[in-house]
Amino acid sequence: MGTRQEISALPPEADLARADSLAREIFSDVANKWAFLIIEFLGQRTMRFSELRNEIGGISHKMLTQNLRMLERNGLVERTVYPTIPPRVEYTLTEAGDGLRAVVDGMCGWTQRYLGHIEKSRSSFRASAG
Amino acid sequence: MGTRQEISALPPEADLARADSLAREIFSDVANKWAFLIIEFLGQRTMRFSELRNEIGGISHKMLTQNLRMLERNGLVERTVYPTIPPRVEYTLTEAGDGLRAVVDGMCGWTQRYLGHIEKSRSSFRASAG
Repeated sequence: MGTRQEISALPPEADLARADSLAREIFSDVANKWAFLIIEFLGQRTMRFSELRNEIGGISHKMLTQNLRMLERNGLVERTVYPTIPPRVEYTLTEAGDGLRAVVDGMCGWTQRYLGHIEKSRSSFRASAG
Repeated sequence: MGTRQEISALPPEADLARADSLAREIFSDVANKWAFLIIEFLGQRTMRFSELRNEIGGISHKMLTQNLRMLERNGLVERTVYPTIPPRVEYTLTEAGDGLRAVVDGMCGWTQRYLGHIEKSRSSFRASAG
């Protein structure tokens, strides 16, 4: 049973500002093709580094490492090392990562749909502001 | 009826890269509290600058102007000037802006839900990397 302390009211201003800057950072980090694809593929099943690299195709070792570290750091991907010889390393989407997947799908779909519209708007905005 | 030219195949690499950088920019731009709120309120109805400012509450004139210009530039908000004396200026969410609203709702909800988890992950990632 919840005590009074556990019932949260609206978040205070400091929390809002923190959530704000965090959201900004995360959505800017994940709004890149590789992060999209990693989240998409790991959403299907747990994979090893090499499997993931094969599935995605065209991603460099370095780029995959960087993006996996970014996702791991943000708690979106979990890295598990099994003490075999050689060690087996697997990557799994966390619950937060899985939740992000739906959001990322929405971002992707929206961008594809309105890319042309946005570019047109920008050109005419420049023209009218000039 | 569509000609062969109009049937689009998978977008070529250049288009993907363009969509990629555009998505990054837009989601970073809109991932701030004020843009979220503007999109939310204009999603309910067309508003004048002063109405919008009242509804949002706590936003400065400058910050509202800046965000509206950013949204207008990206084709998410349409600004209409009626030639009355004094001129009446109204802001409406475009179709692209309305589509973004659902995505933004998802971003907001996800961030609120996983804020604590993300911060905890970051701390332990720092600790284990140190």
